[in-house]
Amino acid sequence: MIAYFNGRFMEKDEIRISPDDRGFLFSDSLYEVIRYYPGLLFRPEAHIRRLNHGAAHLSLSCTDFSHLIPIARDLIRQNHLEDQDVLVYIQVTRGTAPRNHPFPDPTPDSTVYMNVTCFDPAAKDRQRKTGIHAITVPDIRWARCDMKTTGLTANVLASQQAIENGAREAIFIRDGVLMEGTHSNFMAVFDNTVTTAPLSNYILGGITRETVLGLCRDMDIRVAERPVYESRIHLASELMITGTTTEITPIGKLNGRAVGNGAPGPVAKALQAAFSSKIQQLQKQHPWFSPMKKGENSLKNSEKP
Amino acid sequence: MIAYFNGRFMEKDEIRISPDDRGFLFSDSLYEVIRYYPGLLFRPEAHIRRLNHGAAHLSLSCTDFSHLIPIARDLIRQNHLEDQDVLVYIQVTRGTAPRNHPFPDPTPDSTVYMNVTCFDPAAKDRQRKTGIHAITVPDIRWARCDMKTTGLTANVLASQQAIENGAREAIFIRDGVLMEGTHSNFMAVFDNTVTTAPLSNYILGGITRETVLGLCRDMDIRVAERPVYESRIHLASELMITGTTTEITPIGKLNGRAVGNGAPGPVAKALQAAFSSKIQQLQKQHPWFSPMKKGENSLKNSEKP
Repeated sequence: MIAYFNGRFMEKDEIRISPDDRGFLFSDSLYEVIRYYPGLLFRPEAHIRRLNHGAAHLSLSCTDFSHLIPIARDLIRQNHLEDQDVLVYIQVTRGTAPRNHPFPDPTPDSTVYMNVTCFDPAAKDRQRKTGIHAITVPDIRWARCDMKTTGLTANVLASQQAIENGAREAIFIRDGVLMEGTHSNFMAVFDNTVTTAPLSNYILGGITRETVLGLCRDMDIRVAERPVYESRIHLASELMITGTTTEITPIGKLNGRAVGNGAPGPVAKALQAAFSSKIQQLQKQHPWFSPMKKGENSLKNSEKP
Repeated sequence: MIAYFNGRFMEKDEIRISPDDRGFLFSDSLYEVIRYYPGLLFRPEAHIRRLNHGAAHLSLSCTDFSHLIPIARDLIRQNHLEDQDVLVYIQVTRGTAPRNHPFPDPTPDSTVYMNVTCFDPAAKDRQRKTGIHAITVPDIRWARCDMKTTGLTANVLASQQAIENGAREAIFIRDGVLMEGTHSNFMAVFDNTVTTAPLSNYILGGITRETVLGLCRDMDIRVAERPVYESRIHLASELMITGTTTEITPIGKLNGRAVGNGAPGPVAKALQAAFSSKIQQLQKQHPWFSPMKKGENSLKNSEKP
């Protein structure tokens, strides 16, 4: 598979991360996962906006990664994946320097890595139809979950704990509030109102979360961005997670207890239908993957090796 | 410089971390820094014990890294650094696997990386003599600071904040308690009692911290492992940080305010002297770096490439 690394397209197997890379040593590093539906890279500008926000906060040498969008499309094209379901993974780090905690001086160039992988949506489709089991876990993460850093040890451990308990996702609880999942946002329906943690330093501003809240408004479904308390969770008629690969997936059981009758509820189903129809509509509008001219690619001359 | 990577000694520049390494993708990874004084690798067993503790908690495929101690010595020898001051850096990760949050199945071999770097103690010596400036910052880290993971984004940012404020270290405050520095433990002297945060999930069990508390007991200096509250910090006669490269370094100013008269206090000086004398004593007892026989090295046959 061809990937992208620091200005070059190359075989992924040939990519060499230095052991002095601050992504490896310090998780001084950000990432994004963008979904590609055949013909449609889904909301790449929103992902890049979030990446730029993180890069600015971390004071990386590069804080505008919008040039990566045509490169992502190019990578899909070069790997002949135009008619596949694909995940585009982007990771940027502060770069490579002798190990020392503060920012290196002089400032190194950011490491920029992107790969594409085929994604079989069948398993996720099934989960969307039947609902998943989820558990809750204490939120032991740091207090800047709004930045999508690769400091994911807590997410890995919670995700594994879910699997070991026969569940698919773990929802983090901080101070009695269900914040978000290990790689998804979390929503609950109370009295026909879709309720989800407000944006803060404790949750990631999910792109799918934003899309879903927009769909709710279009569909006259009431939305409340306010804390979902653990003490009231038994009163929810529906629970769901949202995310790039998850889209909108109902939670049928939380900590072994059925949510409603355990089957996907009417709000989740309506949102799933609206989401699918939005994707199909966008796919029709964006037939971007017409063949490039011979020799043409997305790299500016200055970036070519 | 020759380094060690997954069972092989090789030029550091030739080491290739896969972009699928979970250390890079998830900070699913632990590290240690061990100090080598000429002739003396300082308390490597304690470092390895802590590494093993972390590896067991993360359920890595390898949870006993004691074989790395002779390899560390060998690396010093192979790089002809026996009579130098050296830092040995060890990092182990869950290994390499296609990106997915839970533990990969099948379990990959842990990635094991070790390098040595020359360390000029002159700057740190000066800081020990004059004291340093430090600042306090809110502790935004996760709740498992007892594990020495590479999830260090908060430490990097706080460390940089210290530098930008003309300071050398930032001390994390959680719930009104001064916990530890970004890469050191923290101690305060109240009424001739060396006081430091008790071991918990909120601080790293520092090897130097343990050594210093042991020295206090040997020297009949009272020790209290109890919270050091921000509200009482002005009552401390001395403040200091302890760590592998820091050893025992007095804090002359905290947040711009002089500690005592701003100069290193009697407790810090007594501990520094005792620490130096302990090192010198151990250096005499451990002349381990006699030349190896030709062709001999620390790798078991099974590990040789």
